[in-house]
Amino acid sequence: MKIFTFLLGLCSLVVHSQGLLPEVPVPKENPMSAEKIELGKMLYFEPRLSVDGTISCNSCHNVMANGADGRAVGVGVKGQRGDRKSPTVWNSAYNTVQFWDGRAESLEEQAKGPLTNPVEMAMPSEQAVIDRIQQLDEYVDRFKKVFSLKKKKQITIDHVAKAIAAYERTLVTGDSPYDRFVKGDQKALSASAQRGLKLVGEVGCTSCHSGPHFAGQGFEQGQGHFQMFPLIDSEYTEKYQLKKDLGRFNETKKDEDKHMWRVPTWRNIAVTAPYFHNGSVKTLDEAVRVMAKTQLGQDLEKKQVEDIVAFLNSLTGEFPAQQMPRLPLSSGFTLTPDP
Amino acid sequence: MKIFTFLLGLCSLVVHSQGLLPEVPVPKENPMSAEKIELGKMLYFEPRLSVDGTISCNSCHNVMANGADGRAVGVGVKGQRGDRKSPTVWNSAYNTVQFWDGRAESLEEQAKGPLTNPVEMAMPSEQAVIDRIQQLDEYVDRFKKVFSLKKKKQITIDHVAKAIAAYERTLVTGDSPYDRFVKGDQKALSASAQRGLKLVGEVGCTSCHSGPHFAGQGFEQGQGHFQMFPLIDSEYTEKYQLKKDLGRFNETKKDEDKHMWRVPTWRNIAVTAPYFHNGSVKTLDEAVRVMAKTQLGQDLEKKQVEDIVAFLNSLTGEFPAQQMPRLPLSSGFTLTPDP
Repeated sequence: MKIFTFLLGLCSLVVHSQGLLPEVPVPKENPMSAEKIELGKMLYFEPRLSVDGTISCNSCHNVMANGADGRAVGVGVKGQRGDRKSPTVWNSAYNTVQFWDGRAESLEEQAKGPLTNPVEMAMPSEQAVIDRIQQLDEYVDRFKKVFSLKKKKQITIDHVAKAIAAYERTLVTGDSPYDRFVKGDQKALSASAQRGLKLVGEVGCTSCHSGPHFAGQGFEQGQGHFQMFPLIDSEYTEKYQLKKDLGRFNETKKDEDKHMWRVPTWRNIAVTAPYFHNGSVKTLDEAVRVMAKTQLGQDLEKKQVEDIVAFLNSLTGEFPAQQMPRLPLSSGFTLTPDP
Repeated sequence: MKIFTFLLGLCSLVVHSQGLLPEVPVPKENPMSAEKIELGKMLYFEPRLSVDGTISCNSCHNVMANGADGRAVGVGVKGQRGDRKSPTVWNSAYNTVQFWDGRAESLEEQAKGPLTNPVEMAMPSEQAVIDRIQQLDEYVDRFKKVFSLKKKKQITIDHVAKAIAAYERTLVTGDSPYDRFVKGDQKALSASAQRGLKLVGEVGCTSCHSGPHFAGQGFEQGQGHFQMFPLIDSEYTEKYQLKKDLGRFNETKKDEDKHMWRVPTWRNIAVTAPYFHNGSVKTLDEAVRVMAKTQLGQDLEKKQVEDIVAFLNSLTGEFPAQQMPRLPLSSGFTLTPDP
């Protein structure tokens, strides 16, 4: 019986070579430490890093809500709406580039973006972020300790980004039904999910959504797995405004980057609706239909969609319990503007 | 030696009869349960209870930041500013009435206020809150279980308020240096803090800030300990705009309620700056000076202020670690308005 299970396990490994997530890649220039992770968590939940003290990283990438916000697009200070869906922070450490258009080559680089984006946290400058942090003794002490600084003047935006990125690298969900299946537990996936697993290979989805993160092979940071979307025009282009945003072109201004996007992960895709860069598609089955049509020119049958969705549901991992950080106090001043 | 310590302990009990916080008062109509507390925690951290999905209870009463927001006044949806300082949620279960003007007789009643306040969470109606909750299966299941409901139609705003209040009743900080001192640990308070402890009685502060919560004797819910502020006009009235807000009068429209306020707790006062209903005073020493002058007609000496502040610092308790809740997902729809 054990040998039989073992053979079945081998068999499943052959069927889907995507495999299990490796250890989180950690850049040499930002080694992990417990103190750095804790500091990063504090900063991640720190609304006073936004101009009016209302928005933290967690506001849009809500760790408690599967790492996103359930909205079509993010909302920043003063209720301002962005124009792209907030990607989940969980497992973002496995993305080789960050943001929908891949314009950041690392979590460190990404972390700096929203701070000064006028429709997100809207700080007037990176220096303004540092000025605030330098007013809070507990942050100063922690930065000094974590980064071996002698003076508080030495705190830079890169230290802020490094601490936040270190915390984000701890946000990993493993042990999804798919992972248990890969390890040999045949019962972890329903018959429908198992058919879906085969289908995503046969239909061609995994030519882009490959590897254990289902976002392209390899984990080398800064490498990037980009794809044009939509690749083929269809009724969906207009219906979901898929071409309104020029994607990577906005960053590079190169014609070949028009409508190019980072291939997003499938991990936890069932619990991070809505879908696509503009959050225009609300359900996973519709997202599957749209992708098959726009990327592979295929009209999937109802049952195929059901099986693929069943498989995608199996990629929802276990979200480890998180302890809340405790934020340092300002005494004698308010960090954010008074009325 | 042990007898000596014991006698010293007795002695300290005589000096300050305020004593230790009792068990949290729990109303008969809202008994605590682990499931109710967890549901309440989820709702407390649920930004989708605000009109645009940006503000939760925790936004202004930040559990991670000693239960408040460090701002002069709260900030609601679209960056709108309120006109009163957000009181800390920690130990709010000991307040016999809620809000600065005491207009809510219980945590349950308080919890409903911000949901539909147009400058806070700005939901169009309490029914709109329920409509959102009823769309999320996990909330529906939890409400049914916690309140023994048969149908999701039976969920009411009172259930929401009860769950949130149950969670808030768990937010208690004990074991402050003062508490350890009361228990007999003479070293828990510095000589200055011990002088301050005597002074707050001699000067007259504890005629209002009495009892173990330092907010008036007794814990009977709905009872209320009100005081006029400022009681005596001084240079501070104008400087800190202390009479701009009519306080309890705004609610009752009775002349005798002009400038009447709930006596706020001293627990964690050193870590919940700024001070007073309008957050106009930034430091604890200035708050002490203002209170002595406006309530007792006294100009304190510098050393007296220092000693009282040292004592007030000893009322900062231990904040128990909090595990983050996990918020339920919306699939196929966004709970908040799309762009």
